[in-house]
Amino acid sequence: MDKVYGIIMAGGGGTRFWPLSRKGTPKQLLNLSGKEIMVNEAIDRLTKVTAYDDIYIVTNCEQADKMQRVTQGRVDAAHILSEPCARNTAACIGYAALKILRERGDGVLVITPSDAYIEDEEAFGEVLHTAVRAAADSNKLVTIGIAPTFPATGYGYIRYRDTEGNVKPVVKFVEKPTRKKAEEYLKSGCYVWNSGMFVWKASVILKKFKRLLPDLYAQLIKIAAAFGKPEEGRILEEIYPELPSVSIDYGIMEHSKDILVVPGEFGWNDVGSWDMLGALHPQDESGNVVVGNAVNVDTVNTVIYSSGKMIAAVDVSDLVIVETPDAILVCPKSKAQDVRKIVDELEAEGREELL
Amino acid sequence: MDKVYGIIMAGGGGTRFWPLSRKGTPKQLLNLSGKEIMVNEAIDRLTKVTAYDDIYIVTNCEQADKMQRVTQGRVDAAHILSEPCARNTAACIGYAALKILRERGDGVLVITPSDAYIEDEEAFGEVLHTAVRAAADSNKLVTIGIAPTFPATGYGYIRYRDTEGNVKPVVKFVEKPTRKKAEEYLKSGCYVWNSGMFVWKASVILKKFKRLLPDLYAQLIKIAAAFGKPEEGRILEEIYPELPSVSIDYGIMEHSKDILVVPGEFGWNDVGSWDMLGALHPQDESGNVVVGNAVNVDTVNTVIYSSGKMIAAVDVSDLVIVETPDAILVCPKSKAQDVRKIVDELEAEGREELL
Repeated sequence: MDKVYGIIMAGGGGTRFWPLSRKGTPKQLLNLSGKEIMVNEAIDRLTKVTAYDDIYIVTNCEQADKMQRVTQGRVDAAHILSEPCARNTAACIGYAALKILRERGDGVLVITPSDAYIEDEEAFGEVLHTAVRAAADSNKLVTIGIAPTFPATGYGYIRYRDTEGNVKPVVKFVEKPTRKKAEEYLKSGCYVWNSGMFVWKASVILKKFKRLLPDLYAQLIKIAAAFGKPEEGRILEEIYPELPSVSIDYGIMEHSKDILVVPGEFGWNDVGSWDMLGALHPQDESGNVVVGNAVNVDTVNTVIYSSGKMIAAVDVSDLVIVETPDAILVCPKSKAQDVRKIVDELEAEGREELL
Repeated sequence: MDKVYGIIMAGGGGTRFWPLSRKGTPKQLLNLSGKEIMVNEAIDRLTKVTAYDDIYIVTNCEQADKMQRVTQGRVDAAHILSEPCARNTAACIGYAALKILRERGDGVLVITPSDAYIEDEEAFGEVLHTAVRAAADSNKLVTIGIAPTFPATGYGYIRYRDTEGNVKPVVKFVEKPTRKKAEEYLKSGCYVWNSGMFVWKASVILKKFKRLLPDLYAQLIKIAAAFGKPEEGRILEEIYPELPSVSIDYGIMEHSKDILVVPGEFGWNDVGSWDMLGALHPQDESGNVVVGNAVNVDTVNTVIYSSGKMIAAVDVSDLVIVETPDAILVCPKSKAQDVRKIVDELEAEGREELL
């Protein structure tokens, strides 16, 4: 049986949960569920197929210290890799794959984002097992797809050939669709959402890098040459900013044949913004999701999150209301994505203390 | 020239500005304008026609200490009268009138609420002068009317005969009208809003009490018999709860003939609830009224009041958003009156600390 490693991509900036998320405390470092910090939930889930000692986190310099503190006892500090700057998912995955291959040897890499919610951990574990076996046996790229539950326009889709068994050949990757297309995909039954979770051998993905992203690969090899040497940090800081910024989907997946997908149904939610808080918490009979100290009267379909002060909502609907120790956010649920605008505005005003 | 006394009715409970207003800190004790506490603004305005030493405040036991503290230097502590319980405006005015008549002698009483905003203080002063002269010369009841600026359905109206001069004979008092009626009143030009401001001699109003509210008058006389004696407080506490609860409008004004009204135009606003905060503060080009620390993006026609934390409003309209040291309120402007519902709810939940 091949060795299995976990790689958690945790470099996101996360303005979408402002004012709770901040530059130094992005979404993956929040405890939105009230149970555990998201990145720790991601780590714990990976132990279905690997050991804590074999899990790596790729984050950025700004978050590295905090990441180390919150994951202490789970992840070895030496397994927290800091990117000097964000260079998209291809660089992130290539860097971690090389690190593991050179320092630990070849093995199956299970790569996941750090900030999605998964309801049915048991079902997820089974999907991971299936994907790991497929990657080990086939030497192919394996991706985990999410059986769509509604015609989402915010995710990419993967079309697969509906063969027998739990592992399907990918026909093609599809960009975020229009509503009409999404409805077609949902109806057809042979599309899944692209979850951003990948499973493959380190040696296999690096061969793909060499062939499909030769410039990026060559630079990564230069970084790898310094692994374990005193100049490792300096070399990383010199070369990383020069890496081409390309996603693994665009750089590798869309140009590869023979990809496999394991469709899964495990209550996945990327909790992309405040309006999705209902994925993590029960709703009351009026469709409100209330976390913390709140009273509401005649209020429907509203997300209320208080970290201390009492929030009173009277006769409002379809809003997001959030209180943190230094700021309050009020916006329509349908515009929860636009919270970024506030962050931009605060940045323009130089209000660093709120970023 | 008759002696002139001011009486400020300041016993209101004021749940309408929750969470800023509380049981012990009702609206009249708030500084909503950012300049001065409302009751002090009311006091200062009365000095157009009387002296600080001749101003009395009627409040309740719960607010008396705080009232004394905030009005210190303006109003003699002995001139702050505490009602043991609220018994509507007739009892309040009768009590204060008797107190002044017995302890200071007869004079013209200028009676105003404590919690209205007046923009043009000069014009208001002239109206007061006119009313005081009319009350002194005529021995009649004089009331101050507000020239209506829109077809308000939230105020009572006074119909007057449009004679020459600034002092008009009252035809009748009219209850809060329907929208349609209000529009007619506005068009007719011989209706004013009932401001709750009255001007009359102490001896004149008490004669009216004796005739129109004989039970109330008899009880007040019993209280007055104890004025200045050691048992004054005890007697007040014994008798006051027994007083009939009736408004001066219903008990006296609507049953009196020969009332005079002085119509005034001085930018009056009763600032009845949060949606009226725009009367006290400028609006931005999107119709937002912002007091304190706030950033808003794509937000229109919204009232934002922060007492500390930054309030970020994204893409909302026609809301009231208020932050105080221990609570946050979000409600539609059109439902600002319903803030009382939250107070009721908190009371039902026994959350005394927020009342």
